[in-house]
Amino acid sequence: MIKKVIWKGNCLDILDQRLLPGKIKFEKAKTPGQTALAIKNMVTRGAPLIGCTAAYGYALALKERKPASWREAQSVLEKAARTLKASRPTAVALAYAVDRLHANASDFISVNRAKPFTGQLLEKLAGRIDREAQAVFDEDVRANDRLATIGAKLIKKGSNIITVCNAGTLATAGIGTAVGVIYKAHEQGNVSHVYSLETRPYLQGARLTMYELMQNHVPCSLITDNMAAHIMKTCPIGAVIAGADRIAANGDTANKIGTYMLAILAKHHKIPFYIAAPIPTIDPAIPNGDHIPIEERSSAEVCELKGIRIAPKGAHARHPAFDVTPAELITGIITENGIIKPVNRKNTLKVYNNGVAK
Amino acid sequence: MIKKVIWKGNCLDILDQRLLPGKIKFEKAKTPGQTALAIKNMVTRGAPLIGCTAAYGYALALKERKPASWREAQSVLEKAARTLKASRPTAVALAYAVDRLHANASDFISVNRAKPFTGQLLEKLAGRIDREAQAVFDEDVRANDRLATIGAKLIKKGSNIITVCNAGTLATAGIGTAVGVIYKAHEQGNVSHVYSLETRPYLQGARLTMYELMQNHVPCSLITDNMAAHIMKTCPIGAVIAGADRIAANGDTANKIGTYMLAILAKHHKIPFYIAAPIPTIDPAIPNGDHIPIEERSSAEVCELKGIRIAPKGAHARHPAFDVTPAELITGIITENGIIKPVNRKNTLKVYNNGVAK
Repeated sequence: MIKKVIWKGNCLDILDQRLLPGKIKFEKAKTPGQTALAIKNMVTRGAPLIGCTAAYGYALALKERKPASWREAQSVLEKAARTLKASRPTAVALAYAVDRLHANASDFISVNRAKPFTGQLLEKLAGRIDREAQAVFDEDVRANDRLATIGAKLIKKGSNIITVCNAGTLATAGIGTAVGVIYKAHEQGNVSHVYSLETRPYLQGARLTMYELMQNHVPCSLITDNMAAHIMKTCPIGAVIAGADRIAANGDTANKIGTYMLAILAKHHKIPFYIAAPIPTIDPAIPNGDHIPIEERSSAEVCELKGIRIAPKGAHARHPAFDVTPAELITGIITENGIIKPVNRKNTLKVYNNGVAK
Repeated sequence: MIKKVIWKGNCLDILDQRLLPGKIKFEKAKTPGQTALAIKNMVTRGAPLIGCTAAYGYALALKERKPASWREAQSVLEKAARTLKASRPTAVALAYAVDRLHANASDFISVNRAKPFTGQLLEKLAGRIDREAQAVFDEDVRANDRLATIGAKLIKKGSNIITVCNAGTLATAGIGTAVGVIYKAHEQGNVSHVYSLETRPYLQGARLTMYELMQNHVPCSLITDNMAAHIMKTCPIGAVIAGADRIAANGDTANKIGTYMLAILAKHHKIPFYIAAPIPTIDPAIPNGDHIPIEERSSAEVCELKGIRIAPKGAHARHPAFDVTPAELITGIITENGIIKPVNRKNTLKVYNNGVAK
């Protein structure tokens, strides 16, 4: 499996996914700030992978600058947490990972605060943060695997599947979420063909999902985003599966722009529409999708493609990076704790709290 | 208004729309074959404009090669008609224009066949073809204008409008169909904002519609195709208006890929969905959309963008250039003969036969 981030103890090598599939190149981050910038500039992407990357980024705080007091340690870590969490607003896995590491570190500091500050204790704190960052990564690998096994049971023999953006191994620590389900179903001989939406403007579907699927010998075709309805009408499509960036308590789901479109089109064609996402994607503090912040990125990212202008000079473009699919359009949300189905507040919170719904 | 084709009597200058908005360059066609190639390669495009271009292309047949007999004249013209009609399969305006000119020319030949073949009679035939080609062009200009006036009445004050591909002045002889309606409604002060879908893979919306709208000072934003659903949900959209390549007798409408998607999304959001097209777009010989031939273009046109590869080497892409929107998803079809509403066989044929429906 291709490495997406390589933790080297005092720095982080991040695969530059903007260059895929043409080039495999890693960008080095030595500080939380550099990690945040790599996330903001989409060197790396994919909600669960952003969470893992931010966890390692947080662990870099104490390597960048050796604090000389508990107070300074706390302040350095707080700044790292703030910087990382500000890098992208929609995916909650990022906040989840950073908050988790920061709570863990703060806990260590408050327990040890009464003791004199020593290099040994600082080492201990740093070690604890490193282990927690690794735990976030390892848990995502396992969650991917369990989720994929659970989701694959939904895929009937001979299914054609539509997916959007990249919710695969390049978006997670493990085998992926939506694409993970496809891999497992394919292993079981149940996938006939996958249609990958190219997913403008960043073309994650064309560049990343097609790359992964081809590497793993899953039969696949690329389609432009505006072909999805026609493909649903003219091919027998068994399921649409997408990832998620944040799921509200009632099951409303923010994911890459175009997901909401697919959910409406799937409903019209009576095709099951699934979201596949690990538990840290659920944000129980958010009652419904209206409260999920939707990142609006720059107009230039739509008007230019790899440096080539595709719209008139001075043209204005909208660039919401995500949209929200209301719970009622989602057939089921596949998680490592089980499937949320029907998608409503009760079932979402039940699965979130580790109760297996199905 | 920008010139799209310039008829020079013995050759045709065709604006190369593939280079817009960056560059204004004309390609010269001296024969029906060169005209057909320009249509096939999308130097020019847009269903009504393809019809006008093909009409002039047909008129080039007798300039390319001076026939020496009625028999040769008939054969030269038949070959021209065949070549032009084979250039693109979906838009019926092309076949309409070529068949019309060919019937007119054949009529002249059969009336004069008994007389000896002279240069003077050949000149007369050529003149007649030239005039008929010009008539096809001029009729489209007038149809655009009438259609736009009729359609503008549907646009309420302060409307935000979504359109797809380019059904504007660059797609027709005149001010356009869908975009023509927008121009008229804008003149009347009723258009608040236009959202233009970029329309992958050829980006006609990004390159052509944005260019036109900006030139004409219509407030507009570019969106990627996968943003349409999110925009419908988050902005108040008054109408979706698209052009058409072929309308079956029951009102099912083939148009640029993505139109069917927009119709489903509009229905979901309870937004009126209009088709704007001149009468020659209606093909009464085709009972419904299932019988409209949908052109499948090359995979490479999806995998590459302006020569830059955007998908992995060896990737397969689907490339249906059009889709079919069933009549029941269309609120009304705006024509120069009036509005077809509700869209069904009876109303479609009534308006086609010059009965004003509304």
